[in-house]
Amino acid sequence: MNTKRIIVIGGSAAGPKAASKARRMDECAEITIYQRASDLSMASCGYPYYIGGFFDDRSQLLCSPAGVVRDSKFFWNAKKITTKVLTEVTAIDRQNKRIEFTRIVNGEKGTAEYDKLIIATGSTPRKPPIPGIELDGVTTLQSLPDADYLRKVRDEGKIKKAVVIGGGLIGIETCEALHLAGIEITIIELLPQLLTFLDKKMAKLVEKYIQTKTNVILENGVASFIGENNTLTAVRLENGTEIPCELAVIAIGVVPNTNLAKKANLSIGITGGIVVNDYMQTSDPDIYAVGDCIEIPNLITGNPVHAPFGDLANLQGRVAGENIISGNVTRFPGTIQTGICKVFDYGVGATGLSKKNCLKSGMINIETVVNASLDKPGFMQGKLLVTKLIVEKSNGLILGAQVLGPGDVSKQVAIWAMAIKGKLTVNDMVNADLPYAPPYSLAIDHSIATAHIMQNKLNGRFSGISSEQLKEKLKNKEPLVLLDVRNPDEYEQMRLGIGEILIPLGQLRNRLKEFPQDKNAEIITWCKISLRGYEAALILQANGYERVKVLEGGIMAWPYKREK
Amino acid sequence: MNTKRIIVIGGSAAGPKAASKARRMDECAEITIYQRASDLSMASCGYPYYIGGFFDDRSQLLCSPAGVVRDSKFFWNAKKITTKVLTEVTAIDRQNKRIEFTRIVNGEKGTAEYDKLIIATGSTPRKPPIPGIELDGVTTLQSLPDADYLRKVRDEGKIKKAVVIGGGLIGIETCEALHLAGIEITIIELLPQLLTFLDKKMAKLVEKYIQTKTNVILENGVASFIGENNTLTAVRLENGTEIPCELAVIAIGVVPNTNLAKKANLSIGITGGIVVNDYMQTSDPDIYAVGDCIEIPNLITGNPVHAPFGDLANLQGRVAGENIISGNVTRFPGTIQTGICKVFDYGVGATGLSKKNCLKSGMINIETVVNASLDKPGFMQGKLLVTKLIVEKSNGLILGAQVLGPGDVSKQVAIWAMAIKGKLTVNDMVNADLPYAPPYSLAIDHSIATAHIMQNKLNGRFSGISSEQLKEKLKNKEPLVLLDVRNPDEYEQMRLGIGEILIPLGQLRNRLKEFPQDKNAEIITWCKISLRGYEAALILQANGYERVKVLEGGIMAWPYKREK
Repeated sequence: MNTKRIIVIGGSAAGPKAASKARRMDECAEITIYQRASDLSMASCGYPYYIGGFFDDRSQLLCSPAGVVRDSKFFWNAKKITTKVLTEVTAIDRQNKRIEFTRIVNGEKGTAEYDKLIIATGSTPRKPPIPGIELDGVTTLQSLPDADYLRKVRDEGKIKKAVVIGGGLIGIETCEALHLAGIEITIIELLPQLLTFLDKKMAKLVEKYIQTKTNVILENGVASFIGENNTLTAVRLENGTEIPCELAVIAIGVVPNTNLAKKANLSIGITGGIVVNDYMQTSDPDIYAVGDCIEIPNLITGNPVHAPFGDLANLQGRVAGENIISGNVTRFPGTIQTGICKVFDYGVGATGLSKKNCLKSGMINIETVVNASLDKPGFMQGKLLVTKLIVEKSNGLILGAQVLGPGDVSKQVAIWAMAIKGKLTVNDMVNADLPYAPPYSLAIDHSIATAHIMQNKLNGRFSGISSEQLKEKLKNKEPLVLLDVRNPDEYEQMRLGIGEILIPLGQLRNRLKEFPQDKNAEIITWCKISLRGYEAALILQANGYERVKVLEGGIMAWPYKREK
Repeated sequence: MNTKRIIVIGGSAAGPKAASKARRMDECAEITIYQRASDLSMASCGYPYYIGGFFDDRSQLLCSPAGVVRDSKFFWNAKKITTKVLTEVTAIDRQNKRIEFTRIVNGEKGTAEYDKLIIATGSTPRKPPIPGIELDGVTTLQSLPDADYLRKVRDEGKIKKAVVIGGGLIGIETCEALHLAGIEITIIELLPQLLTFLDKKMAKLVEKYIQTKTNVILENGVASFIGENNTLTAVRLENGTEIPCELAVIAIGVVPNTNLAKKANLSIGITGGIVVNDYMQTSDPDIYAVGDCIEIPNLITGNPVHAPFGDLANLQGRVAGENIISGNVTRFPGTIQTGICKVFDYGVGATGLSKKNCLKSGMINIETVVNASLDKPGFMQGKLLVTKLIVEKSNGLILGAQVLGPGDVSKQVAIWAMAIKGKLTVNDMVNADLPYAPPYSLAIDHSIATAHIMQNKLNGRFSGISSEQLKEKLKNKEPLVLLDVRNPDEYEQMRLGIGEILIPLGQLRNRLKEFPQDKNAEIITWCKISLRGYEAALILQANGYERVKVLEGGIMAWPYKREK
């Protein structure tokens, strides 16, 4: 057997993973990574935490778990992989199975031949053509130099005000990082909500929380960056508002780097990513592609998506690394777009489809519920979790979940991701056997309780109303009986104040005469999380009221201003 | 429709849950709970944390999430459920569908008729007939009075030495609670390992950790309790050792309370629990049973098990509560025996089958791996997790997982529990789409990395050796080349010291001449967690060595004494 020549373009995440896996599959192959940047295997997902001061030793972003910097020497010694850093691949000559490259430091050009090629060119932050974008103080957060720059901002402590443009995942992470550096932040988002992987109401809950830390401006874009002496002094919004600031971070998403692939006439998909099959093979059987530069199928809808997540990049790299050595023996099936981010003391995550994405994909036969409850018992300092669950109405198939709050969000999202992976239904989840002990969960885990509520709803035991729908009804001045069934002391501490009456659940059966004679009156019930609200609804229904609705998630999931 | 008369025997966990669910299903039913104890709905899983001082307000053990004590008044007002506390049901008259009861305070007797009966009589701690067991200072931890007694021990601070008899879940939790009260603890366990839901080697790792906090004595039982003035002064072990102590907590398991069921001639199963079908119905169609007094199927083996877990009790209660009202419409399928406990700063959990239980059930065609790695990146203060995964060899079906360590064990166990629920295989898990961000996980989650190792093992890419097997080989003085491939500074800090040579992975390819000429020599490789150990094995194999084995889990999963 001839020695296989393998070239990998891109040395950040998916590329090195593919190269390492290939080496483990074949001790003899000649493996070379070309990397435009100077560093290799950067933990780019860690940049916000380096900037935010969660750790100070920059080299940790570049280290193996054993604490060795993953430089060219490391790759050669530990893995017998040649790495050519500061070297840009400029063309792929598919005919001759050859790449052309240029060494960035001296402009030196060269070519190299491959038997198998892996494209792992990643993505680049979207940068809109806004006047003033070249000013000092305007940056993105994608590369290690970006991270170095923002860390320096932290360390110097001179900058007092910053604007983060884009309320997506990176924007929000950047926002926390800079806030921790003592900088006053304003987030600007063009859309009517932050974090578009969430449905709007869930995003509102995050927004409400973030507003306790930073300013949030929605439905507004940046018209221009204003500067003096080539240095940013303010951001002017499309509505004319000027926000003085010394720093602006643009985080409005990334675009796959497909220039090389396009020039080589490889298929590019509708999302703009390189098309690959589930072996990670492009339209050229000798060329594979992995990571942020490709598109992959959403496993629920079957539609291609651009899913630039570090975990998927690594998994794809592993699959490609094996297939280029052994032939197409292993598959990366696609994604359910599971994601999570830390938002100060909240976790915010999602998996599967949002309601929005269901509707967009033409899936209209769905049901949703919102559950707000603790992650573990109050006596173990349980913290709030709010979950929105989305299922197929006809069979209860779990389609998606969004989870947020100060509680253990990560575990909840993992549970739902596994439920989707296993194609489980609500009926499967209601008796799930999860690890229970008071330091870790409630006796009925938050996820199982969410499934219980969904089961009740699917069985027609109650009608729910979302805070959004209720807000709409209030706006329209629809006649409603609004019923809070908590205790007076709870009511004193916190209440919606939207015209509700307070009848504690324990008194409800004796105070039914206070309700309208008309059994067709619309009644909305709630409590803190709406468990008692549900019980109240059942009592009212049992007494003939036909239009009783439970406010889903109760007061804890109310994203609007409360009276108290 | 006549008003349904429902009687529930037992008011701790499963009973009230069944009663509450029945009420939600039927506002008109007459529902009565008979409870021998004075309290209702006690959060008994919380007792160890009350004793350990995690919280001080005892009423939290009895409160609803809204902070209201769940007493008789609460049950009546909020749920229209009658509760008769301090009332013991003495007989079930199936013929006449009637129970007989005695009020404990005054001996008053009575009867009550039912349409449907739910038995939720729970379990009682096993108490061996050991001389001196009646001494002051000898207790169990099951009831609220037990918890009160042990909390008083904490608050008074007089007792300095205690013995915990039984190294199971309750024993270990008690041990932590008393340790936190400043008491010196010795755990006595009859078997050769603690926590029998773990395989022996995993249990050894827990034991090694617990020994940093308390004394552990295995394979020894208590012969007698020794006292003066009716008060415990020491425990005498079967081997004659006397351990001075002022407190002994017996925690050697529980037995289902089935006296009533037996007297009523209901079927009792081989585990000693009441037999129910998956509607929670006993051999009498009008009598249901739930909670610690029943046996249920293990969903993997199909064998009945006694699984006295609070979460299952609640789920069963919910199912029974619905079925007694609506006919048999919903099922509780069984358990995969998922469990977790907090052991000081470690979490220790398991789901599905252990290797031991596989073998016991005649499932011999299995493969196991041990993976030790961090739960999240080092720069985010990642903490160690050790997982043992057990799968069916022929198809990779996931059968069980055991997870322990200071890392996020709860999420890992939940992931594997869901994998088993979804009947997933290793091939499904290798590309699982789990929530990744540095504050929550590694780019390749610990669970996925475990699946990767298993996949490599199933594909024959490496042979693993467990620490137990290696220890055995060392004992037998088998000729071995022992190879640690870490860096010299790592070796200086920590090492096994069992005769190994140190060749850092990066030097291995250049130092192959230091290995025996005989390509059939047995070589064992490792590193801290054995990722590099695996890479080293591949290099050696590629160079013709045929008997290379990787020490699974590396140094971090070595449960024996290290040189350093």
